Amino acid sequence: MADISQQQLDEIYAFAVQLGKDAGQMLMDAARRRMQGKDATTIVDYVEKENSVDLVTKTDNDVEAFIHNAVAKKYPDHKFIGEETYSAGASRAYLIDAAPTWIVDPLDGTVNFTHLFPMFCVSIAFAIDGHPVIGVINAPFLHQTFSSCRGKGAWLNETQRLPLIRNPVPALPANAPSGCTFACEWGKDRRDTPEGNMIRKIDSFMNMAAEREGRGGKGGMVHGVRSLGRDVAAGIAILEEAGGLITTANPPADFETADIPPVKLGSRLYLAIRPAGDHPDETARQSQHRVVRETWKRVQELSYSRPGV
Amino acid sequence: MADISQQQLDEIYAFAVQLGKDAGQMLMDAARRRMQGKDATTIVDYVEKENSVDLVTKTDNDVEAFIHNAVAKKYPDHKFIGEETYSAGASRAYLIDAAPTWIVDPLDGTVNFTHLFPMFCVSIAFAIDGHPVIGVINAPFLHQTFSSCRGKGAWLNETQRLPLIRNPVPALPANAPSGCTFACEWGKDRRDTPEGNMIRKIDSFMNMAAEREGRGGKGGMVHGVRSLGRDVAAGIAILEEAGGLITTANPPADFETADIPPVKLGSRLYLAIRPAGDHPDETARQSQHRVVRETWKRVQELSYSRPGV
Repeated sequence: MADISQQQLDEIYAFAVQLGKDAGQMLMDAARRRMQGKDATTIVDYVEKENSVDLVTKTDNDVEAFIHNAVAKKYPDHKFIGEETYSAGASRAYLIDAAPTWIVDPLDGTVNFTHLFPMFCVSIAFAIDGHPVIGVINAPFLHQTFSSCRGKGAWLNETQRLPLIRNPVPALPANAPSGCTFACEWGKDRRDTPEGNMIRKIDSFMNMAAEREGRGGKGGMVHGVRSLGRDVAAGIAILEEAGGLITTANPPADFETADIPPVKLGSRLYLAIRPAGDHPDETARQSQHRVVRETWKRVQELSYSRPGV
Repeated sequence: MADISQQQLDEIYAFAVQLGKDAGQMLMDAARRRMQGKDATTIVDYVEKENSVDLVTKTDNDVEAFIHNAVAKKYPDHKFIGEETYSAGASRAYLIDAAPTWIVDPLDGTVNFTHLFPMFCVSIAFAIDGHPVIGVINAPFLHQTFSSCRGKGAWLNETQRLPLIRNPVPALPANAPSGCTFACEWGKDRRDTPEGNMIRKIDSFMNMAAEREGRGGKGGMVHGVRSLGRDVAAGIAILEEAGGLITTANPPADFETADIPPVKLGSRLYLAIRPAGDHPDETARQSQHRVVRETWKRVQELSYSRPGV
């Protein structure tokens, strides 16, 4: 954070929160126009990207243009990586470096939006030195804005500090992943091949769900399996500021002892553990590492580097 | 509806909506007490029912008692079936008959509530002749109340008529289930046996997700797979009033031609299709039947009648 002062960061945070509000209003206005039949088409128009479940709508592009213009005007020296401009580009490399950079998904949950399933949001992150330090996520249909700035805490609707339960933050269960809610995404790779990501993912999800003695000892008996259809970026900043941990979901061969690496932006494979309280037998961080390893034990490696997806 | 006039039904509806507001406020108050550390325990206390992922909390019981008392005072002649009193009882039979009956889940999504995952709600249905005709679902964390009364439409927050997109209601996709969002529940039966419900369910979910040419021709390539951790009852009333269809998820042997039976309360196996618009080639109802059969084709039969679950 060599050339950005805390005061500048505070200003950027305030700007990002307002941007999230304005962009969320644009998403909600677009949703309402469809609800009121005021658009020429009431079925939302979308374009398939890599396959028939990878979509982009006019709303994605309009909101991204709005955010991009606002950032370019206010902070002409900052880099900007937008989900749609990035997706449309030739390179799949996630070109993030140490420079002050905005990472924006204007409509995170495009499939949800096309079905007016309420879990859609605008996701705005600001990164320095390759790591998100400000995050703003506004899900306007649910009246929920999550935001954070490094050192200033993470918040729901600017008033409720995160994590929601804080006095104290509950420790992670001793027998985790049992007692945990497991949120996962089926994703867009639907190829039916034994070594394909879909088959390996679902095998991993089944390990997490099954009774403890099942699946050759890999049963996790989680409290529940949830899928909402959204993903990361600003979420990393908010989760970390709230005390959570995020790393890779791809287990290393020596999953019991390997270092737990910091999250790599653009890796498409994330494992996030909620904020945890300290416990007489282990610190919060130790318990998070324990749950990372218990999860790595149960999941298969995935690859998104092969052609086709 | 022999002995209940439309005027009486209107009154019952208004009473049910207010009940949903009050009970939702109780849920939110309980959530806030935990967020503020004002409860003796900040980890919610819960009791495991049939296994470690089948939970009941003090809030379930408190809210059910509140609703039960309010109904008993206002409508002493009505029957009352509460999720928790029902679960605690000896019989697993779902004792619903033709009498005016309230069917209430005071805290639908107990696992979500214990984790303060916002998808929890109170669910209140009123049934006559064994079928729900009034439904009220209040998800207070999301500021969303869904309600319906037979003949009076289905509503979001009493102002936005359902389905959300109405002018016109979009037709179902010609290649459904492709183009549809598929919502499913992993459920509480986690036994790792080849003929167990979990294995069969996940096999079915994979059929729905896979590329069209995959899974021996059963690939459904749905837009997305979603799991929220809530279930039915008042939802039936609201979905039907909005124009949706709900039937059994268990496919009959002759799934291509069998009658599509009306939903059976307490069956634990539901297949719900969204409201649909008419299309030059088929009516809305025809298209819903088509999607039922396309789904039946891809899913395995499940059994919840065996002991142990």
